[in-house]
Amino acid sequence: MHEPASSPIGTVRIADYIVERLQLRGVDHVFGVPGDFVLKFFEHLAGSDLQVVNTCDEQGAGFAADAYARLRGLGVVCVTYGVGGLKIANTTAQAYAEESPVVVISGAPGLEEQRSGALLHHVIKGYDNQRRIFEHLTVATAVLDDPDQACREIDRVIDAAMLHKRPVYIEIPRDMTLMEVCRPVAQPAAPPRSDGPTLAAAVDDAVALLRAARRPVAFLGLQTVRFGLLPTALRLIERSSIPTAVTPLDKSAISEQHRCFIGVYAGAMSRRDVQAYVESADCLLLLGPLLTDVNLGGNTAHIRPERCIHATRHQVRIGYRTYDRVRLEDFVHALAEADLPGFGGVSTPVTPDAGALWRPEPKTAVTVARLFERLGAFLADDTVVIADPGDAMFGALDLPVRQDHDFLANAFYASLGFAVPASIGAQLADPARRPLVLVGDGAFQMTGMELSTSLRYGLNPVVVVLNNAGYLTERLMMDGAFNDVLPWNYAALTGVFGGGRSFVIDTEEELDAALLEAADSEDLCLLDVRLDPRDASPALLRLAEQFGMAAGAALAER
Amino acid sequence: MHEPASSPIGTVRIADYIVERLQLRGVDHVFGVPGDFVLKFFEHLAGSDLQVVNTCDEQGAGFAADAYARLRGLGVVCVTYGVGGLKIANTTAQAYAEESPVVVISGAPGLEEQRSGALLHHVIKGYDNQRRIFEHLTVATAVLDDPDQACREIDRVIDAAMLHKRPVYIEIPRDMTLMEVCRPVAQPAAPPRSDGPTLAAAVDDAVALLRAARRPVAFLGLQTVRFGLLPTALRLIERSSIPTAVTPLDKSAISEQHRCFIGVYAGAMSRRDVQAYVESADCLLLLGPLLTDVNLGGNTAHIRPERCIHATRHQVRIGYRTYDRVRLEDFVHALAEADLPGFGGVSTPVTPDAGALWRPEPKTAVTVARLFERLGAFLADDTVVIADPGDAMFGALDLPVRQDHDFLANAFYASLGFAVPASIGAQLADPARRPLVLVGDGAFQMTGMELSTSLRYGLNPVVVVLNNAGYLTERLMMDGAFNDVLPWNYAALTGVFGGGRSFVIDTEEELDAALLEAADSEDLCLLDVRLDPRDASPALLRLAEQFGMAAGAALAER
Repeated sequence: MHEPASSPIGTVRIADYIVERLQLRGVDHVFGVPGDFVLKFFEHLAGSDLQVVNTCDEQGAGFAADAYARLRGLGVVCVTYGVGGLKIANTTAQAYAEESPVVVISGAPGLEEQRSGALLHHVIKGYDNQRRIFEHLTVATAVLDDPDQACREIDRVIDAAMLHKRPVYIEIPRDMTLMEVCRPVAQPAAPPRSDGPTLAAAVDDAVALLRAARRPVAFLGLQTVRFGLLPTALRLIERSSIPTAVTPLDKSAISEQHRCFIGVYAGAMSRRDVQAYVESADCLLLLGPLLTDVNLGGNTAHIRPERCIHATRHQVRIGYRTYDRVRLEDFVHALAEADLPGFGGVSTPVTPDAGALWRPEPKTAVTVARLFERLGAFLADDTVVIADPGDAMFGALDLPVRQDHDFLANAFYASLGFAVPASIGAQLADPARRPLVLVGDGAFQMTGMELSTSLRYGLNPVVVVLNNAGYLTERLMMDGAFNDVLPWNYAALTGVFGGGRSFVIDTEEELDAALLEAADSEDLCLLDVRLDPRDASPALLRLAEQFGMAAGAALAER
Repeated sequence: MHEPASSPIGTVRIADYIVERLQLRGVDHVFGVPGDFVLKFFEHLAGSDLQVVNTCDEQGAGFAADAYARLRGLGVVCVTYGVGGLKIANTTAQAYAEESPVVVISGAPGLEEQRSGALLHHVIKGYDNQRRIFEHLTVATAVLDDPDQACREIDRVIDAAMLHKRPVYIEIPRDMTLMEVCRPVAQPAAPPRSDGPTLAAAVDDAVALLRAARRPVAFLGLQTVRFGLLPTALRLIERSSIPTAVTPLDKSAISEQHRCFIGVYAGAMSRRDVQAYVESADCLLLLGPLLTDVNLGGNTAHIRPERCIHATRHQVRIGYRTYDRVRLEDFVHALAEADLPGFGGVSTPVTPDAGALWRPEPKTAVTVARLFERLGAFLADDTVVIADPGDAMFGALDLPVRQDHDFLANAFYASLGFAVPASIGAQLADPARRPLVLVGDGAFQMTGMELSTSLRYGLNPVVVVLNNAGYLTERLMMDGAFNDVLPWNYAALTGVFGGGRSFVIDTEEELDAALLEAADSEDLCLLDVRLDPRDASPALLRLAEQFGMAAGAALAER
């Protein structure tokens, strides 16, 4: 598209440097929507080895980049100033909350334009307004307004994204896009290190607690996944045969076929045997999970601090003692080498495999419980399950996912409408995987048009819309017409987008037939599964049962 | 829905007080999407006299509230914390830029929850993070965390919205929603006043300049509209028969049938006779327009400061002299009473009425120019035209709109996707008007699903999708696949939403027939008008012609 870079030795154009640094981190795709302040950069991207992926709306690009980052280690969303940047404030907040390293690149008015002081479109209050907003949403921001510092600034913020596993912000005044600047002299930053004696103390105390334990449970958490520590953590777990659970956010950090896996723990939403096992454990080895409200079954978890070894990215807590400046990677590596007893032979919860026995009941309406049983049978080795917040996710907690990294859910930040655009990022990040998207109708109406993007780029998710004409979880908490959505004929959307196959599903036989066809098809498949407006998943019913009340009342009270 | 308020004398529940204050300002509708942190307030709204209008996505609610505010004087958007609030950062920025008084109401974690320090869903960094972000997007923010101050805070921010005609932010911790608090003792704030001698000097100097003028031109601007000064400003114009123009943002501030109206001025995008007349005027009386880049034809305007009397909300500039602390209303009122000469009898540009003579050419593909000619004939007294940024808006500049307040466009901030949700706010604000929505296909793919909301609430806009398979304006600036969008079969959307009528239009005969049917129909009508991907409106072609180059190159260079 554009002339090849012909920079003198030691210099580089800013746009080329950004592309180079992103590629070095394994990025092949950039998600976004162009606009005039960023058009020159889009034109440059189009001529680079990075693939531009246009979404319908910036929100879709932000969510897609987040999912891509979770699977690839870094994601990029590229937008114009104001009308683009501010549309992804929310998706960036989610990436911050769930520790997903996303680079936000925004165009901006040129420095010359800014100096003229003109009232430019998309600008409010002042030219630095957008950067100041993103300071609240990221771990580092940079405006590339200084040729001498541009490369160093790019390095600084991308390094920050990698170090903190959180979003960062780069703003390019449009007249800087192709400016020729000096390459930085390589200054490899010294990686942060643990404090040696504190690390040793933390490991000693953790080992002592584990040696004294008879029924410990390990949790593999988000930070273990993000920092690439799963192999080491699994070696630790396997050597001592420690029964292992996950929170909803971390589902699939360990294969659910793994001999040490006992289940998903989410307080009163857990399967009863899993809940009882975890809550009666005499030692909990928490390797980096986020202990948050929704992620723990609406604050219904019972985890006793005095029994916990809680390792996070910068700190370990054991009982009521804190060990600062102990990095997660050092702690996990040290513990994996320590001399720990074995805990094999203990009787642990076993995940039921209801799906394998599933047969459609003739002329029977589909229930949420039966839907998820059937979806369990649909899972293949190449499936990645992507669940939207609400009962789509609660129901998915019981799905027996097969391999590592095949479950994505924004179970902490819980922004509705994540799943459909996330499937775009996920499948481009790993084309060997086919997304199974589980999404409520309310959420689908927010971002479902991004299936157009899936079709445009030849992707083929299987999208299951849980159609109950409203926001079920809220309906159960406090009912009103404000929890209803207009019932769409979702299946007609493939006609709008001109691709994919669609299915309207009322009965178990129709569900079975549609999923058999979807499994055989290479096409994007959209399943409109019509459900009773107050039917709920087993997980939500378990929560209700525990409190002896309507499911939602329980949620609302917590 | 809920028990009637039974507050002791002198006290009131916070939610009741908010409803009461909004109704007092003429608000009848609240646009939003519920979420758990704001559910109690939604439930309360549902039992109040305010109508809750649920949109598919928060973005749609934000834009709808903005349009409602422009017509009603105040609009309200109500969302949950984080995942709701941050989704409307962009729509709030637009309301700020274009001086539209929108009240953002966001739920939030309860004060008790906040004190517990738990990691709550939708929360990042800290509980005050969202408020701090909205400080960059509004003129006033309040968190209702103090029962003693709650009512006063509500008054303060709503007053600020009314005074500044810009958005404000109210955050309600969910456990405060129904708290009984003391009513404030009425403390009517003294309205800001002009400095008397400065006002007199400004008026004297303005009168002198107008008396010396032979060919003055007046501009009726946004601030004149927002502050309710149109009747006075029109009296001033009519008394002296001052030829009057508007910028795109202000189109319809004066009826285009008005004897003093000469045309829309947007630099090189203007009709040539209008451009020549304005640029050769010996005095410009600018009553509150925003002199911004897109709004002035991509910075192609030629307005000589030494010939201007530029009145803004707080200040008047005459030539190179500034008169501070002169309020727009005082200046306009004083000038309307001053002794000014008459300027009647001057030959001024006349708006051509091409639409009246429009006849379809058989078997002829629709061009953008012919589309807008035909739309001119479609306009009725009850039409409100809502134009999305890009060529939908540029083309609409030539439409001969009939009455005051019947043209809405976000011509300054220019966020794509405004028009469809804006039509919801506009029609609810004034049910006697029927929106004619003009929107490019790229923008339609962002927010077009909100037609579902229109149908849900029985609204019947006529929506014209300018289908050229991409972002035309950008395509003309710098072309690439990133400016394409997937061609949808837009007409199939009425099947998805289960309502409305749709039309596929390739030829002039089909266009004519569809608009005749739409005019007769009470239904929502969706017209998919298929255009050549590089065809452009006369306004965009005029811009190009002036520079003797491709239209977009001209735009890109400016």
